[in-house]
Amino acid sequence: MTTHDPQIAFWFDFGSNYSYLATMRIEALAAARGVRVLWKPFLLGPVFKASGWSSSPFVLQKEKGAYVWRDMQRQCDKYGLPWTQPGAFPRRALLPLRVALLGAGDAWIGTFCRHIMHANFALDREIDDPALVGDVLTALGLDASALLAAAGTEQNKLALRAQGEEAVRRGIFGAPMFFAGDDMFWGNDRLEDAVDWAVDHVAARIDLA
Amino acid sequence: MTTHDPQIAFWFDFGSNYSYLATMRIEALAAARGVRVLWKPFLLGPVFKASGWSSSPFVLQKEKGAYVWRDMQRQCDKYGLPWTQPGAFPRRALLPLRVALLGAGDAWIGTFCRHIMHANFALDREIDDPALVGDVLTALGLDASALLAAAGTEQNKLALRAQGEEAVRRGIFGAPMFFAGDDMFWGNDRLEDAVDWAVDHVAARIDLA
Repeated sequence: MTTHDPQIAFWFDFGSNYSYLATMRIEALAAARGVRVLWKPFLLGPVFKASGWSSSPFVLQKEKGAYVWRDMQRQCDKYGLPWTQPGAFPRRALLPLRVALLGAGDAWIGTFCRHIMHANFALDREIDDPALVGDVLTALGLDASALLAAAGTEQNKLALRAQGEEAVRRGIFGAPMFFAGDDMFWGNDRLEDAVDWAVDHVAARIDLA
Repeated sequence: MTTHDPQIAFWFDFGSNYSYLATMRIEALAAARGVRVLWKPFLLGPVFKASGWSSSPFVLQKEKGAYVWRDMQRQCDKYGLPWTQPGAFPRRALLPLRVALLGAGDAWIGTFCRHIMHANFALDREIDDPALVGDVLTALGLDASALLAAAGTEQNKLALRAQGEEAVRRGIFGAPMFFAGDDMFWGNDRLEDAVDWAVDHVAARIDLA
């Protein structure tokens, strides 16, 4: 018999700036409450297109876009996170998302994601880049070339596409998005609420095995 | 010589559900930090139209709309506020906004706004209604018919229109919106940050008079 900790699913895209804030905060925050994180990398672009948007609303709406960069600076100051407005936004992140999908159940996933986010939103580097992703994997003591090869297989490409289709099916319309049980929470501002919800409302499952 | 407390400007529309949360919270929260609230009622509809939207994004985007009502229930539970999903959304609020504009500098403004918001988001009542608005004013010990007459003058109608134009000029794209000095904060989730900003960054003005 094993008991399972409460858990939250964390849907994110490396190109999403508010996903950056959540990625840097979620693991420590969830661990402190005994909540497990299920990492759900997905491509946000097709989800926006399903809503009839050709790009991020921060690009399509000039006023909102201007606001968001100011908000990000203040939020990063508040959380003690580094911040550089990316020279390209939203940044294409297909390769690191494919790697994250491969590693979603592995112990290195959190550190990997934080490194990729840091490259995008603190260092202003292109992240859809085998050299950069490979360097991150190597720095984590992993076999970079084996993982990059596995990330590029047809099977893994289809798996990431399927993850995006599941996002749309679940009613996801932006990122970051959290699920605690069936309850959906949108945005870094709801991270604490989602973790609280998982603790308070999502009964620990008990498997008889 | 008088010193002025730090202050925040609070831009809101009675039809906006996240403005409801902020309206119910702002006065107590600001007072506890010694921050003065400048009430800035405005019509959000024309601002959305200036962004190319025919209605609220919560109406135009089905998935976001479904999310928002669930989020409102949870947020109201968190803040201990009553909540009923309005039967009409966004509710037309021209008359109460005109009255709020008249009373923006008066001591009764906060209580008036909370009553109108309560009617919309807890009682699910039409609020663009002289009888309802009059009852609220009377309950506050005010001269309802005089205020309703003043609210309907051409001068006051133009003043509310001018307030909306100022909103667009300031880059406002949604509600609630807070200003602490020139710094803009969007959404009920940023209320605490805006108040903190006013305390920490907006130097108290000293008038020599």
